[in-house]
Amino acid sequence: MAAFRHQVIVSMNDTDAAGIIFFASQFVFAHVTYERFLESIGFSFAEALEKEPYLLPIVHAESDYLRPLKVGDRLDVELTVSNIGHTSFTLDYLFLRDGEMVGRSRSVHVSMTKEDGKKAPLPEKLLRALELFCTGAERRPKRSP
Amino acid sequence: MAAFRHQVIVSMNDTDAAGIIFFASQFVFAHVTYERFLESIGFSFAEALEKEPYLLPIVHAESDYLRPLKVGDRLDVELTVSNIGHTSFTLDYLFLRDGEMVGRSRSVHVSMTKEDGKKAPLPEKLLRALELFCTGAERRPKRSP
Amino acid sequence: MAAFRHQVIVSMNDTDAAGIIFFASQFVFAHVTYERFLESIGFSFAEALEKEPYLLPIVHAESDYLRPLKVGDRLDVELTVSNIGHTSFTLDYLFLRDGEMVGRSRSVHVSMTKEDGKKAPLPEKLLRALELFCTGAERRPKRSP
Amino acid sequence: MAAFRHQVIVSMNDTDAAGIIFFASQFVFAHVTYERFLESIGFSFAEALEKEPYLLPIVHAESDYLRPLKVGDRLDVELTVSNIGHTSFTLDYLFLRDGEMVGRSRSVHVSMTKEDGKKAPLPEKLLRALELFCTGAERRPKRSP
Repeated sequence: MAAFRHQVIVSMNDTDAAGIIFFASQFVFAHVTYERFLESIGFSFAEALEKEPYLLPIVHAESDYLRPLKVGDRLDVELTVSNIGHTSFTLDYLFLRDGEMVGRSRSVHVSMTKEDGKKAPLPEKLLRALELFCTGAERRPKRSP
Repeated sequence: MAAFRHQVIVSMNDTDAAGIIFFASQFVFAHVTYERFLESIGFSFAEALEKEPYLLPIVHAESDYLRPLKVGDRLDVELTVSNIGHTSFTLDYLFLRDGEMVGRSRSVHVSMTKEDGKKAPLPEKLLRALELFCTGAERRPKRSP
Repeated sequence: MAAFRHQVIVSMNDTDAAGIIFFASQFVFAHVTYERFLESIGFSFAEALEKEPYLLPIVHAESDYLRPLKVGDRLDVELTVSNIGHTSFTLDYLFLRDGEMVGRSRSVHVSMTKEDGKKAPLPEKLLRALELFCTGAERRPKRSP
Repeated sequence: MAAFRHQVIVSMNDTDAAGIIFFASQFVFAHVTYERFLESIGFSFAEALEKEPYLLPIVHAESDYLRPLKVGDRLDVELTVSNIGHTSFTLDYLFLRDGEMVGRSRSVHVSMTKEDGKKAPLPEKLLRALELFCTGAERRPKRSP
């Protein structure tokens, strides 16, 4: 199992008046990492939004915050796939600063048609890429009966 | 000349680690006021994005920052229209806190077709609404000679 | 048990190129509601950040997304307190559009000293206010044995 | 005259339901570039916020938008210094996509003391770094006392 890796830097825009990162910014970092991941497997968000018949909306997201993060902090984000279903998948994100885990996030995505919002099987190309980064622990059979 | 009025409250998300509002947040406040203004004249962004053949993108925006703004500050935003052209218009925003001017913004919008991005005359309904809030000072003739 | 109620409106800034709300924006709406809640009980974020010896950082947050939300949508947010511990509390948020539940969020906060980041008892005033909005189901004894 | 260069990628969070970048995001890109610039000359925002006696707030900001920008677009940002005063400086940002200019921004910063918000001379170290990236065209005499 490999993780997809991306680095982000905490910017002023990500912080708030308490002097540290605003909690919602960690979700933005997770999503940016997801975008770079898709790009790395040949998926373009711009193209998909224009041409593909499906969307991959997030139906659940969560984060744990283990350390206060400051402007200028460099975070190594490790993305793995913890679950692949027939019409959904789950991404896990670890946030590390100088090797220390400082946060965790998770996003659950479903595949649905743009036209009527009905659940749709994950696109084959995405499926194969997700499998490369899947931790396997929670791998469900692709086809439900 | 009347101003369109809207109130916003500075939230933690709008601030940064310097303890005050992040400068880009004032532009967000301006746009939110513009959205409420359009809504007040019967324009719905959601509908326009789906059904209308034009877009009204911003081609220029600027802000002055006169006072540091803190979380919880209530800002009265006054929107006026300072210019109406054939295919463009300019909105001015004053930000007041307890009656004192604390900031200013301006946005210049053009009307263009969704299909090919070419300039298009302002929709009649929008034009009439803009005229109600126009300061007149810089009112240009609707049709160039 | 009463809920604290606040209304937010989805603005363009909250949406993304998929045409609906960006998932992290729901967390911003939750936090804005939390800020209005604190304000309603006489807490000022600005004052607390400057004068109080404690911070109330979020250590966990999660959201479920039940419906795609569009620009202009009016959301009624209902905040309740689902857990009060000695040094932490949990807030639940329901998001309703025209009476239909469209999303849920949760944030877990801890109380810590600004000086050294150690856990600290919840301030008395906050504790009494939280109790007014506590669903009771998961009310823990204030003092652990 | 050299420009300081930084690359940013438009992410979903930077876009809105019109399908392109939300105008305020260009200001965020400008500020991120400014942060990387300061870092490159040995300035740390985090340290400055904690230890230095001055702040460098933005008193004016403006942007021109020349092309619609989409998610995934890679933007090369070129930062130059177009004015250095005794207590202020002006930064210009060019945004290029595949070598084509797609946007421009400007930010005007002043130097003030944290304690009482009074204007203060620019720190020497910052001054020397700004001079390296100054286009010179509008270089004003420092007017030392």
